[in-house]
Amino acid sequence: MSVLIVGSVALDSIKTPKHEHNRLLGGSASHAAVAAGFFAPVKLVGIVGDDFPRRHIGLYRRHGIDLDGLQVSPGKTFHWAGEYELNMNHRRTLKTELGVFERFQPVLPPAYQNTPYVLLANIAPALQHHVLDQMRRPRFVMADTMDLWLNIALDDLLRLLQRIDALVLNDSEARQLSHEDNVITALRKLHGLGPKYLIVKKGEHGSILSGPGGMFLCPAFPLERVCDPTGAGDSFAGALIGSLANSRGPIEPGLRRGMLYGSVVASFCCEGFGLTRTAKVTREQIDARVATLRKMAAL
Amino acid sequence: MSVLIVGSVALDSIKTPKHEHNRLLGGSASHAAVAAGFFAPVKLVGIVGDDFPRRHIGLYRRHGIDLDGLQVSPGKTFHWAGEYELNMNHRRTLKTELGVFERFQPVLPPAYQNTPYVLLANIAPALQHHVLDQMRRPRFVMADTMDLWLNIALDDLLRLLQRIDALVLNDSEARQLSHEDNVITALRKLHGLGPKYLIVKKGEHGSILSGPGGMFLCPAFPLERVCDPTGAGDSFAGALIGSLANSRGPIEPGLRRGMLYGSVVASFCCEGFGLTRTAKVTREQIDARVATLRKMAAL
Repeated sequence: MSVLIVGSVALDSIKTPKHEHNRLLGGSASHAAVAAGFFAPVKLVGIVGDDFPRRHIGLYRRHGIDLDGLQVSPGKTFHWAGEYELNMNHRRTLKTELGVFERFQPVLPPAYQNTPYVLLANIAPALQHHVLDQMRRPRFVMADTMDLWLNIALDDLLRLLQRIDALVLNDSEARQLSHEDNVITALRKLHGLGPKYLIVKKGEHGSILSGPGGMFLCPAFPLERVCDPTGAGDSFAGALIGSLANSRGPIEPGLRRGMLYGSVVASFCCEGFGLTRTAKVTREQIDARVATLRKMAAL
Repeated sequence: MSVLIVGSVALDSIKTPKHEHNRLLGGSASHAAVAAGFFAPVKLVGIVGDDFPRRHIGLYRRHGIDLDGLQVSPGKTFHWAGEYELNMNHRRTLKTELGVFERFQPVLPPAYQNTPYVLLANIAPALQHHVLDQMRRPRFVMADTMDLWLNIALDDLLRLLQRIDALVLNDSEARQLSHEDNVITALRKLHGLGPKYLIVKKGEHGSILSGPGGMFLCPAFPLERVCDPTGAGDSFAGALIGSLANSRGPIEPGLRRGMLYGSVVASFCCEGFGLTRTAKVTREQIDARVATLRKMAAL
């Protein structure tokens, strides 16, 4: 079944201690859509300016992504520039030029409104609400977020938590949102805010699912070389919802399997700048790495 | 089969943001021996002063620990005092009174010299060597260490790595010893220093085994309340070698299973001050928590 993904489409300029790349295809929706596209048909909702390079459209198309929901508006595409420290764990935003993204109002083409699986990738919670308002009874809604929205749009985010099935967030966001230092205690409190399923991303330390069936501890794929972690979390969420949309049976085993796929697609994402590595990966390579990860984590 | 454990026996005074306890039974050998005792007969090698409380001897005995190798010497027992910060991830040493430990020369009773499994728990590498010198062809030797020895006894430690089968260390020690920031790269370099098996402890993020059969990613048992993490690493190593000594078949599956037991015994250790919680746990409670952990990490 198909997945609707809304989020940011951006041009990313990324600096690491060793390299620098400018105006790569990025944004939460781009990473999530390419990742989800390995598993299920994807409908993209986003906005770009008239400066958006045609080769990026080609990349989306090669991944079978439906672009009827991608608005092209006069002006400049959202541009983000950031720099990573030596250990890749801290990044600093150097520039945020919103461009056409500033006046983005997601409008869903009629054919999108019945999409059964929805990923509200990282974007202002008000826009995530706006997309949900246009959907007709989706089967499963997952939302991602970031610390920025906890700081400047907390009320919108709290209202959103009542409308979604699953929230994806990282461990520091889980602590901030719950006012709890312990992640396990945080999970218990966050369920009280609405979501039936919570997925906490811990980067190289894996991820945790919390749901009615208990907890699932998902390992990260161990990497020797992290080239650029930008978009790893979006790739994780995209592969997770894509894999879920492509699976039968009960939700929770589907989420567990999806997290394993998410870990692996995120690991490929980290091995190249922007989407350069992910865009070249095959489904066979993903499956092979999932098999390796299963073997490494078999108890 | 039985396990010989050498290490420190100490009285620990521990301060956390909420509580303070003085002169609890502690030290690497105490934690490791009690943990190993759940799985196999343990022979303890260590030193205490004539002030060592009799109730601690009783605790060892209740765990079936052979104390023929525990020297009682005129003077004071090693006393360590430390304080934990709010998040329990950082601790500060407030006091180190070596007492009789300063002139410790481990002497193995003849009946100890044929013990098939050996854990050189955290102690000066020169003393770890001294114990190995007295052993007759042990089947499996595992050593633990700490950053202190990397700083002040690196040559002794490097020589030790040539004489052991497995090294247990935490992630920051693995980075320091290998001069590599990436733990996976660090593992590869550390094998070059000698040990066939490396086990990297990452606290709440689990542990990694690296051996000829590849990597094993072992989850930590998720805890809501960490009371006192002192001795968790020693408990992990003790349960690991105890479980290994108690298992048949090839080494690597035994190490994997042992790490799972190690994670669980370490989780109990964190739930009480010093050995208070671990000493009250039953083998049935350990097995039940292992079953829960297996369920939470099943792929």
